[in-house]
Amino acid sequence: MHAREMIGTHPAVQGQINDTLIRCIEECYSCAQTCTSCGDACLSERMVQELTQCICLDLDCADICNITGRIMTRRTGSDDEVMRRMLSVCAAACRLCAEECQKHASMHEHCRICAESCRRCMEACQELARGMAH
Amino acid sequence: MHAREMIGTHPAVQGQINDTLIRCIEECYSCAQTCTSCGDACLSERMVQELTQCICLDLDCADICNITGRIMTRRTGSDDEVMRRMLSVCAAACRLCAEECQKHASMHEHCRICAESCRRCMEACQELARGMAH
Amino acid sequence: MHAREMIGTHPAVQGQINDTLIRCIEECYSCAQTCTSCGDACLSERMVQELTQCICLDLDCADICNITGRIMTRRTGSDDEVMRRMLSVCAAACRLCAEECQKHASMHEHCRICAESCRRCMEACQELARGMAH
Amino acid sequence: MHAREMIGTHPAVQGQINDTLIRCIEECYSCAQTCTSCGDACLSERMVQELTQCICLDLDCADICNITGRIMTRRTGSDDEVMRRMLSVCAAACRLCAEECQKHASMHEHCRICAESCRRCMEACQELARGMAH
Repeated sequence: MHAREMIGTHPAVQGQINDTLIRCIEECYSCAQTCTSCGDACLSERMVQELTQCICLDLDCADICNITGRIMTRRTGSDDEVMRRMLSVCAAACRLCAEECQKHASMHEHCRICAESCRRCMEACQELARGMAH
Repeated sequence: MHAREMIGTHPAVQGQINDTLIRCIEECYSCAQTCTSCGDACLSERMVQELTQCICLDLDCADICNITGRIMTRRTGSDDEVMRRMLSVCAAACRLCAEECQKHASMHEHCRICAESCRRCMEACQELARGMAH
Repeated sequence: MHAREMIGTHPAVQGQINDTLIRCIEECYSCAQTCTSCGDACLSERMVQELTQCICLDLDCADICNITGRIMTRRTGSDDEVMRRMLSVCAAACRLCAEECQKHASMHEHCRICAESCRRCMEACQELARGMAH
Repeated sequence: MHAREMIGTHPAVQGQINDTLIRCIEECYSCAQTCTSCGDACLSERMVQELTQCICLDLDCADICNITGRIMTRRTGSDDEVMRRMLSVCAAACRLCAEECQKHASMHEHCRICAESCRRCMEACQELARGMAH
């Protein structure tokens, strides 16, 4: 991922790189991939019937992380209110998905990794949102 | 769009169709298309330099409406908190995009139509969010 | 959906509206919504185990239709080769999803509607691709 | 990105990890982010008028890489024809975007990095497609 390099060359950013922003973008793209993969792995499990809630939360979380990664990447005329609200919905989706995946973490390794990825993304969103409040 | 027909056949909905939900889904998909089209039309205008803010808001709004339409479409294990926060970020993105497009509405017909589409989508999101609070 | 109105105001289109293009854009957005809804309804069915293939094809088809709708909407500097290849992958995804959904059409009304929506979108993509070859 | 770890735990993959697939998934997500960032940086450049073609190709390429990354991530019931066609449209979009970005590479560092990222993603898609033909 070239988030750091790219942000550094953006005319509106002028070399002032915000580490918290970079981390948030990277975690969002990474978590979008992990959730897509976990939902798909769940669909291949024999006990899929018991994993439908997990699949749904994976799908929502993948979509929301994807768009949050895009919104945070765009620095031209970005709006603070939209960014803050997007970070808050992303943190909420990650928290829910992490909680559900954690329940299956001992049985399904993909759920264990996904729960971790969601927690990291949630924290990155929360940290960036906190920084914006100041 | 078959949102109404489809929701009516969903096992978790059981024929109880929520008109406000259907309207919100339809407006989200429609507004996603309109914003994509407006941003692209702006890029073809000779005065593109003066439309960059409009293009950025169109891009954000298209992405957010798209995902909001998907999240609202999914009825299996959908979470009220995520839905409410998603509706709030979508209403905010639509409001901003409508305000910016309105400034160019007299010069660019695509901006006039887009402003209208954004306002309708914003209202549909707000109405659905209000219904969920009860 | 305002695809027709919007395309008509695009500076690069200049009022020359291509009906086949409009129909393709509308079917893509509509089919993206229908496939998202069908995949989600399948997840709520008691026999979900037998519907996992259907869910997967729904997810792929929803994603592909969504992006095809966006690519076709953008008229600024659009490239014929990318458009043609995108239409071909969209038609293939729609055909596969229609075939799978058709198998469950008598049991699940959402699959019946989805199969129909996929066939219509496939035909719209094929027709637009044929028009571009001339 | 946890693509490797996740694929390794997928019930349909059973530990048989395809390095070419992993690389393709990683390059797709990475290139989606880079193109989103480059298009946005172009919008902030004073010479935006001369960069509209670049912005359009960035937008198409970001959308297509995003979905290709998702389609390749899903291993449950994935279809070879759809995968091959998706890889071919992704390689075409990456090639076009790389060629356009390369023209501005000496003036805009974001275009230089983006051209490189697009070439790497194109090659990863082509390599995976070749492997599938056998």
